[in-house]
Amino acid sequence: MTYRAPVKDFMLLLDHVIGFEPVYAEFAETGIDRDTVAALFEEAGQVCESILVPAQQPGDLNLPVIENGQVRCPPEYHTAYQAIAEGGWIGISANPEYGGMGLPRTLGSVLHDMMSSACLSLQLNPLLTQGQIHALDHHASDTLKDLYLPRLISGEWAGTMNLTEPQAGSDVGALRSKAEPNGDGTYAVSGQKIYISWGDSDLTENICHLVLARLPDAPEGTKGISLFLVPKFIPNADGSLGDRNDMRPVSLEHKMGLHGSPTAVLEFSGATGWLVGEENDGMAAMFTMMNDARLNVGVQGVGAAEAAYQKALAYAVDRVQGATTGTTGTIVDHADVRRMLGTMRARVDAARAIALTCATSLDMAAATGDAAWEARGAFLTPIAKAFGTETGIDVSDMGIQIHGGMGVIEETGAAQYLRDVRVTAIYEGTNGIQAMDLVSRKLRDGGETAAALLDEIFDCAEVARATFPNMAQDLFDAGEVLREATDWMVAQSDYDERFAGASPYLMSFAYVLGAHYHLMGAAKSAEPERIALARLYFRRLLPLHVPLAKEAMAGNSDLASLAELAFAP
Amino acid sequence: MTYRAPVKDFMLLLDHVIGFEPVYAEFAETGIDRDTVAALFEEAGQVCESILVPAQQPGDLNLPVIENGQVRCPPEYHTAYQAIAEGGWIGISANPEYGGMGLPRTLGSVLHDMMSSACLSLQLNPLLTQGQIHALDHHASDTLKDLYLPRLISGEWAGTMNLTEPQAGSDVGALRSKAEPNGDGTYAVSGQKIYISWGDSDLTENICHLVLARLPDAPEGTKGISLFLVPKFIPNADGSLGDRNDMRPVSLEHKMGLHGSPTAVLEFSGATGWLVGEENDGMAAMFTMMNDARLNVGVQGVGAAEAAYQKALAYAVDRVQGATTGTTGTIVDHADVRRMLGTMRARVDAARAIALTCATSLDMAAATGDAAWEARGAFLTPIAKAFGTETGIDVSDMGIQIHGGMGVIEETGAAQYLRDVRVTAIYEGTNGIQAMDLVSRKLRDGGETAAALLDEIFDCAEVARATFPNMAQDLFDAGEVLREATDWMVAQSDYDERFAGASPYLMSFAYVLGAHYHLMGAAKSAEPERIALARLYFRRLLPLHVPLAKEAMAGNSDLASLAELAFAP
Repeated sequence: MTYRAPVKDFMLLLDHVIGFEPVYAEFAETGIDRDTVAALFEEAGQVCESILVPAQQPGDLNLPVIENGQVRCPPEYHTAYQAIAEGGWIGISANPEYGGMGLPRTLGSVLHDMMSSACLSLQLNPLLTQGQIHALDHHASDTLKDLYLPRLISGEWAGTMNLTEPQAGSDVGALRSKAEPNGDGTYAVSGQKIYISWGDSDLTENICHLVLARLPDAPEGTKGISLFLVPKFIPNADGSLGDRNDMRPVSLEHKMGLHGSPTAVLEFSGATGWLVGEENDGMAAMFTMMNDARLNVGVQGVGAAEAAYQKALAYAVDRVQGATTGTTGTIVDHADVRRMLGTMRARVDAARAIALTCATSLDMAAATGDAAWEARGAFLTPIAKAFGTETGIDVSDMGIQIHGGMGVIEETGAAQYLRDVRVTAIYEGTNGIQAMDLVSRKLRDGGETAAALLDEIFDCAEVARATFPNMAQDLFDAGEVLREATDWMVAQSDYDERFAGASPYLMSFAYVLGAHYHLMGAAKSAEPERIALARLYFRRLLPLHVPLAKEAMAGNSDLASLAELAFAP
Repeated sequence: MTYRAPVKDFMLLLDHVIGFEPVYAEFAETGIDRDTVAALFEEAGQVCESILVPAQQPGDLNLPVIENGQVRCPPEYHTAYQAIAEGGWIGISANPEYGGMGLPRTLGSVLHDMMSSACLSLQLNPLLTQGQIHALDHHASDTLKDLYLPRLISGEWAGTMNLTEPQAGSDVGALRSKAEPNGDGTYAVSGQKIYISWGDSDLTENICHLVLARLPDAPEGTKGISLFLVPKFIPNADGSLGDRNDMRPVSLEHKMGLHGSPTAVLEFSGATGWLVGEENDGMAAMFTMMNDARLNVGVQGVGAAEAAYQKALAYAVDRVQGATTGTTGTIVDHADVRRMLGTMRARVDAARAIALTCATSLDMAAATGDAAWEARGAFLTPIAKAFGTETGIDVSDMGIQIHGGMGVIEETGAAQYLRDVRVTAIYEGTNGIQAMDLVSRKLRDGGETAAALLDEIFDCAEVARATFPNMAQDLFDAGEVLREATDWMVAQSDYDERFAGASPYLMSFAYVLGAHYHLMGAAKSAEPERIALARLYFRRLLPLHVPLAKEAMAGNSDLASLAELAFAP
């Protein structure tokens, strides 16, 4: 593997594209400036390259197993996890009161980008712990916070998210796990949870499970769900570990990828749990955790795509095959190979810009409490999640193609990126659910937030008109297409009409945002490489927004008639 | 697994879409008519459903191994292979002089479609044997034909294709394997071949390897390559098996999918071989075999997509999740799930129509010797191969998505379709090479063959104008876009300008052809389901041809500048 952390690309985004400048000011008390940020990225990049990368293939080959009720991970994972924990990365954005660094989460997303490139299945572990830290900090009692947060932030303990049951996947409200009061302030939690990522491991001495369950006589559906913190080992007040709790990993899933991340079925048999937040209000805290995770799942896609791109490029500039008119004598001389590589690179840059713009909105929202920043972050989250993960899938698929026959040979490592990243389009809310969220909740403001983003796009087109008139005009036209699609969505009172075009609407918005950020990067940096990438993106990727926007407005009638004719059980 | 052979769909294509009517007349002496064809499909479909399907998962789980120089396959493969051989399917289109049925290859492609749905990795075996039968029948001596063809046609022996060496993949001319005359009319063949699909197995008593190698003092490149038939066991004149030849499987590849098909490294150590065709003219015979295989590799993609679609549909009409406004209470009520299912179904139908239209052109070319039929088949072959396999990948990927979390769990079987079909976009000429073939060799007639296909498209639009005016107009407009892109391609004397847009040009052509066949099927059958599918295709898939055609004409400048700036080693 040839991964090199693209620190230059990250800094270009912070300097010119994602509007990070005001974040330095808002987080001034942490002492960060451009130099410390660059140094952080450099240092983290080196750790990823040298310590995480070596875990990538062993995690794929040596499947985790349950031995005596305990999941064992390969030694490379222990080394790599220690490096992550010791770097303070898990608590990078966490509350300094409990040992966190309190830095902007944009920086944390950049670290996730690099970790995802280096070893996606391991990176998922701190991603989940961070979500738990975020949820506990917002919803848990001070006693729980004092006991758990310092140890989660240091990485001594890890956190998981327990929602899914066999009959309750996307429909969380259908869950049946139960919690009965023990009379001492604790609860006895029982039930079976499935698809629990990092549901058990020996990387940390304790694992803290956030579990959704129902109290006795709780209302039906999502309004009767409460959230419980259920540790694997019950900690004493001083943080030392007491008895093992009444819960255990029953089995591990056999997945197409992400083998290094143990996906467990967990059985809770009256395990001791502590209520987080209010009774019957568990969904609120869970959404805090989930929304936090959604953005960084999008970043997982970006990171996997980056690594797949780098691997394919390294192969292409080395592999000699076929006479060409080019000068290197390698397959990069073939126009079709260059087309794939250029598309991969331009797509990764677009997806990364969207994700980090979203992160920066959330940073500004947290720092200022401003509703517009919050709405912007909330609008961009489903786009960042779905477009980032689709980018991970598409780019890693192209990476296989560039390798030719070697692409499907597992020893090459190209196929692992696709196998590993595939689930990211499914977990933390499938991409279809992201799209439905976008066209329903996120357009509930009548399209105001979307319109503000469109204004940013038009402003960029206006500013770039002098230097890049063609790209500026293309971006302007694309913004108009998006405005039409947005107006169409807002006008539909029957939500099935919206949902029938939700996914293409999301993708269309993403492709136009990507063009916006490419043009900004080219215009503001004036670097020849950025200009060339922007031109390629405008020629080969931006035009996709047209059929997508058209499909967004296609409505539900064709789908409904087909359901009657062809899909009846 | 829930596969049901879509016999009704096949018959609709033969009856209304692919222009099969004249084939009945040309093949009248074989006695086929609509009824016998329908009966053949029904019977073969039942065999695929009941005997091939049970091999699908065992082939994935029980990887073939080399034991004492011999590859062993799971018992389900033996049973399924026997059914294929006993059905006479391997020789369905082969020369009756040697025991073949002499039927149109269109029918053979339909059988491949069903076999690919049922068990792709096993189906690859007869696919390769058929290519060998075709090549030997056209290029081998009568002695070789008399000895080998009856046993290949009966399925007692199997055939493989040996081109690739580590330094010679897409660039076949770089191969180094050698053949020295033994003085008795035979040759001693030496060298190492890699990625040999079904390079060894215990399904047949003998395996016949067609091997490309160089004679002493042969010219460099593809003009110095000869073709040799190298059997695993050297047959006696009566067909009984003599000594084991001096060649052996050295190792098997560890692939992302298609596990049931043993992909071998074969070592030839002075193995006895017989020249096929003329000295130094091996590429001609190999292209006969490869072109035969290319179409059916496209069919592999279609078959895998069909099975992935059926599996996803079965899941969607059964899985209860989330409140909807629909009536079934299952996830098929969700518009976004319907969108995916409808897109999958419409895409499969389009890819299948293209592949079978190609097969019918080749049947008519073989029967009539007409150059226009031959050119039509040759033009459609790279489109059928690339679009069929891309369809296999895209549709099986959507199949995973519909399954949600279960999609990435291997026991579900959804992921296997994607893992298995992925290589089809690479072998028998990568899809990039198909696209380059299309815009170079297949446009060497100045676009005449393309123009004839466009005329078919315009004629269809004209005929449908009365009943489906909107779709007719959309098809007409799309044909114009394609004409512009074709003219642009033909006008480029610098082939790198063509190659920079070759893949999008191919895909654009395919999406428009798909619309053409959808509209024909709807107009001629007048079945509500076909009309609904056509409408969906025109709304959600046809519009993709616009950005693709635009990219086809984008030229090489952006790629060339990026190569200098970003891809330099």
